[in-house]
Amino acid sequence: MPELYDVAAIGNAIVDVIAPADDAFLSAHGLDKGAMMLVDEARSAELYAHMQPGLETSGGSAGNTIAGVASFGGRAAYLGKVAKDQLGEVFAHDMRAIGAHFDTAPLIGGPATARSLINVTPEGERTMCTFLGASTEFTPEDVEASVIEGAKIVYLEGYLFDAEAARRAFAKTAGLARASGRMVALTLSDGFVVERHREGLLAFLETQVDLVFANDTEAMSLFQTPDFDAALSALRSRVKLCAVTKGAQGSVIAAGAETFAVSAYPVEKVVDTTGAGDQYAAGFMFGLATGRPLNVCGQLGSLAAAEVISHYGPRPQVRLADLAAQKGL
Amino acid sequence: MPELYDVAAIGNAIVDVIAPADDAFLSAHGLDKGAMMLVDEARSAELYAHMQPGLETSGGSAGNTIAGVASFGGRAAYLGKVAKDQLGEVFAHDMRAIGAHFDTAPLIGGPATARSLINVTPEGERTMCTFLGASTEFTPEDVEASVIEGAKIVYLEGYLFDAEAARRAFAKTAGLARASGRMVALTLSDGFVVERHREGLLAFLETQVDLVFANDTEAMSLFQTPDFDAALSALRSRVKLCAVTKGAQGSVIAAGAETFAVSAYPVEKVVDTTGAGDQYAAGFMFGLATGRPLNVCGQLGSLAAAEVISHYGPRPQVRLADLAAQKGL
Repeated sequence: MPELYDVAAIGNAIVDVIAPADDAFLSAHGLDKGAMMLVDEARSAELYAHMQPGLETSGGSAGNTIAGVASFGGRAAYLGKVAKDQLGEVFAHDMRAIGAHFDTAPLIGGPATARSLINVTPEGERTMCTFLGASTEFTPEDVEASVIEGAKIVYLEGYLFDAEAARRAFAKTAGLARASGRMVALTLSDGFVVERHREGLLAFLETQVDLVFANDTEAMSLFQTPDFDAALSALRSRVKLCAVTKGAQGSVIAAGAETFAVSAYPVEKVVDTTGAGDQYAAGFMFGLATGRPLNVCGQLGSLAAAEVISHYGPRPQVRLADLAAQKGL
Repeated sequence: MPELYDVAAIGNAIVDVIAPADDAFLSAHGLDKGAMMLVDEARSAELYAHMQPGLETSGGSAGNTIAGVASFGGRAAYLGKVAKDQLGEVFAHDMRAIGAHFDTAPLIGGPATARSLINVTPEGERTMCTFLGASTEFTPEDVEASVIEGAKIVYLEGYLFDAEAARRAFAKTAGLARASGRMVALTLSDGFVVERHREGLLAFLETQVDLVFANDTEAMSLFQTPDFDAALSALRSRVKLCAVTKGAQGSVIAAGAETFAVSAYPVEKVVDTTGAGDQYAAGFMFGLATGRPLNVCGQLGSLAAAEVISHYGPRPQVRLADLAAQKGL
């Protein structure tokens, strides 16, 4: 199989609705600051009715990562399910406009394109309520074998563990990737995802995954320990490579016996943390696909994360390739 | 009739799709920098396919003005036609979220909600291609008499002269407003609108309008003169009050024999000029409705325009009421 892509990703295809909010708003609506909560269509509509005026923009964790990879100049592909509606068109347009391959057939006659209501509090923290809509209808039939077999790294979004058909699609994908000698990467996505699917995630990563992305909370939750080092040690014993982010404290990369601590890039003002983890994964995988040493992969991740948290919206607003060149990475 | 609103506006209800572009893109697609061009659905789709990833946000000239009035703390109402679709919901949400009255019935079974493709070049100039969709289906039946009769100022968007049913709606609106002793304001909207409807606009403003907003290009085009002073003089002889903006040179207000020159507020970096004229009108009318002197009305307009051109998007991102208080207006 020819190598067509640096990174191919499967994720929940989501349009974000981003609006400012205050802590009182979060409390009044029972929202857990910093988390991603799943909501049904009625709850989504009810919450939306109380939100401030918003900006709509393509999102979705793996979609954001693919946008980051493309912004670094990487060859990227995305698989995910939108509905045949206006927000689905927006998502597809934005994916193709960055030069990524995106050809998953839109869903007809089912729920609407997924949307995530993102309330951003003044310190820049984002709290998300996601109506998954059409994105849960991604099935094994949507897995494009030629894309998976032609990608150096296949990146899977932990959020998809919430849908049974998507878990089967992951199993198919991992099988195709491994048979072609491709690297399989997984992000744990969210602490609540880990709570809901601890056993499934562990079994999947132990048998199918080469590279795991997590933040400190997710890693500790996965192994049910309050001790970061214990969690890291448990994770490194199970996968060849892992990168665990720690917010403003940067990240730690573990590969066998080797460990690299990487600093976060300083940011003048954190405006909106949406997409920080997604962009870290973008920089890291772009570095890996282009043969950079692991500490440089981490630095590329930190750089991309710093760019995205300095403005509203989950995707880069400048060319990350230029930014990396400026920083000599 | 009780006074319910400071400003009630009728406009084309439009969702903006904002993306960065360069001059080569404008040339390649035959776009006239700084203008608003009308396009059909096919041309809109073709252009969109070539644009960069975008941000979607509620727009529409009078809609932006109403958002500005509300941001100043004014009581505001909006009338305009969206379709019963996702972008229509976004528009309605954003209008109600700022506290404005918006109750025009959405169009069912017709064209989609209007969208304006806005390409912003590096110097901050915006070039718009608008597919009017459902917005042209605003008819006299959509004019809510209680809203028009209850508004201190009724603000009409010149763009609606492109649709025959909307012109009839304007005639009905002006009749209701004048019978209730309300002030009728009109914006000329765009140079091409003036070219297309010079006679109709002149007849309407001479017989129905108390206050006219225009920029220098529109005013000179209306009277087919290259001489700004001649255009201002022709305009002041026809309406009680007019405010003509001149970009970075500020604005001129003419009321009978009186003239006020108002400076523009300095802006550190012009990011996106979309909405500058709309916000000028918002500040001016809020000032007028709250009894400020005319030069202060102009300063409120300049202040709101400066805020909106300092960021992407056509509506204020900070409370204009706070900004005005800081500046002692």
